[in-house]
Amino acid sequence: MIVNSRPVLVTGGAGFIGSNLVDYLLDNGERVRVVDNFSTGRTPFLQHGHPNLEIMSADLTDPSTCDSAVEGCSVVFHLAANADVRYGWTEPMRDMEQNARVTQLLLESCRVNSVRRFVFSSTGSIYGNAVQIPTSEDCPFPIQTSLYGASKLAAEGLICAYAEAGFIDPTIFRFVSILGPRYTHGHVFDFVKQLINDPSNLLVLGDGNQTKSYLHVFDCVRAMYQASQSDTLSGIFNLGTREAITVNESIGIISKELDCVPQRLYSGGIQGWVGDSPRILLNTDRIESTGWHPSKSIEESVRETVTWLIANQWVFGEN
Amino acid sequence: MIVNSRPVLVTGGAGFIGSNLVDYLLDNGERVRVVDNFSTGRTPFLQHGHPNLEIMSADLTDPSTCDSAVEGCSVVFHLAANADVRYGWTEPMRDMEQNARVTQLLLESCRVNSVRRFVFSSTGSIYGNAVQIPTSEDCPFPIQTSLYGASKLAAEGLICAYAEAGFIDPTIFRFVSILGPRYTHGHVFDFVKQLINDPSNLLVLGDGNQTKSYLHVFDCVRAMYQASQSDTLSGIFNLGTREAITVNESIGIISKELDCVPQRLYSGGIQGWVGDSPRILLNTDRIESTGWHPSKSIEESVRETVTWLIANQWVFGEN
Repeated sequence: MIVNSRPVLVTGGAGFIGSNLVDYLLDNGERVRVVDNFSTGRTPFLQHGHPNLEIMSADLTDPSTCDSAVEGCSVVFHLAANADVRYGWTEPMRDMEQNARVTQLLLESCRVNSVRRFVFSSTGSIYGNAVQIPTSEDCPFPIQTSLYGASKLAAEGLICAYAEAGFIDPTIFRFVSILGPRYTHGHVFDFVKQLINDPSNLLVLGDGNQTKSYLHVFDCVRAMYQASQSDTLSGIFNLGTREAITVNESIGIISKELDCVPQRLYSGGIQGWVGDSPRILLNTDRIESTGWHPSKSIEESVRETVTWLIANQWVFGEN
Repeated sequence: MIVNSRPVLVTGGAGFIGSNLVDYLLDNGERVRVVDNFSTGRTPFLQHGHPNLEIMSADLTDPSTCDSAVEGCSVVFHLAANADVRYGWTEPMRDMEQNARVTQLLLESCRVNSVRRFVFSSTGSIYGNAVQIPTSEDCPFPIQTSLYGASKLAAEGLICAYAEAGFIDPTIFRFVSILGPRYTHGHVFDFVKQLINDPSNLLVLGDGNQTKSYLHVFDCVRAMYQASQSDTLSGIFNLGTREAITVNESIGIISKELDCVPQRLYSGGIQGWVGDSPRILLNTDRIESTGWHPSKSIEESVRETVTWLIANQWVFGEN
């Protein structure tokens, strides 16, 4: 195995998607530098002591942290973010600070350090309540419905401006919800946590008919790595499966895995919360035309997530 | 004349568009509060001593300034911005700080003070190199080409998220370039300044074939006031004329007004600078369907701008 001489940087590398990406990179012989402030990242998700892994515990809102993290790297995978879509209004300035401003600080560090490959985790949330389903990358100009979506849109705009000016070669991925091992927030997490505590009752935000799409984290990180290895994969790509399921269908799968039949208590309304997109399905023709295809169905992803959460209940007790 | 009991706020009210809006509002019997840091705003543009005009000289990057400015107002016209599209890369963090973050601080002040009407000056620059010409508000998801465009897109996204959450009723105007009295930056300004100094030579950025659209500032502020008076005018509107002219055609009009025939020296390239959009023409069907129509042609707007600049050469000496 030949190890690249320059490390790749993974911001948010101790988080759910980040740590899976780190494992994938290490398995592919890459030297990896992780920067994480461990606000939602978890120490056990990282292979401490791995000879090709360097861990920086630091906060990217500090410009000098960004410079130190980026210096000497060949690729930046920028996954660090505040990912609490639902709780944007409890601290309204946070999304822009942590998602847009930090992205620009990293872009500045890339510019100064001549690091050109920049792979970014954006989100299908930027499509708001999409008027086109399945939603393609060049769908009609979307209207933002959440501070999270607005902050990721801002980050995308900055990345594109840096690319236009010739400073970077970016790949932007707009994710659906990601599931799989180390999944530690979102409604599948909330449902499993509730049902482990009380298998007879389940509180559901909204009416349960919201339609969501999911992708397994292994498929997600494989696409990100593939992009970093190819000069032709710069651009913007939706990342998801061609399927969607309702929240009620997810509950059915989860309940079956947990062998329970809970009474469902609905909060009501077509949205789960203010800014929730009641219908998400992305058109993935563009990424599939590159040869990438998802290997796991939504049902498999939900089941594997539940299995992992049952075996790792320690994650319910932290953060 | 009945004067409204609550003032309207104009941020950037000492600037080119802002001060024209202030005059229009005062003429319509409104009480007006201006907040401006006078970095590009000009003292002589304001009717000092007018009984219905209150002037705050302060910087909106301070949250307490935003609160003081918004408190007690009926409408916020948010025009304060860094408008230097061309010089974004000399201070790369400035556009996001002054255009996106300040917008969010004002939105927070509106939320806290229950001020619902928010009228925002956005820009056709957010369409980047538009794939649809004339460009409509729901054109394909655009790619940003400048830090200025990215920062205005970020501000729009924030405004829409606040509206989705029920805090404000916004109107977003995406302007073409605005011309007319008090015009103090942009390429018509640069050309007139050059030709007054030396009528025989003119440096032109790009190849002169960039196509631009313009609107007279009187037409612009009339649309903004109309929006503030109507509950049905929330939403997003392009604001411009149905015409476009090339930079070379503008130079022809300017030279004729100044009675000179300069040698034109082109810097070359289809763009005037990095991030310049070589082709701008907005579809204005949506705003025209509300009854608003431009009263002046582009040629009239250019000529009136030159006339005003000739009579007000003091503006070349400041800022």
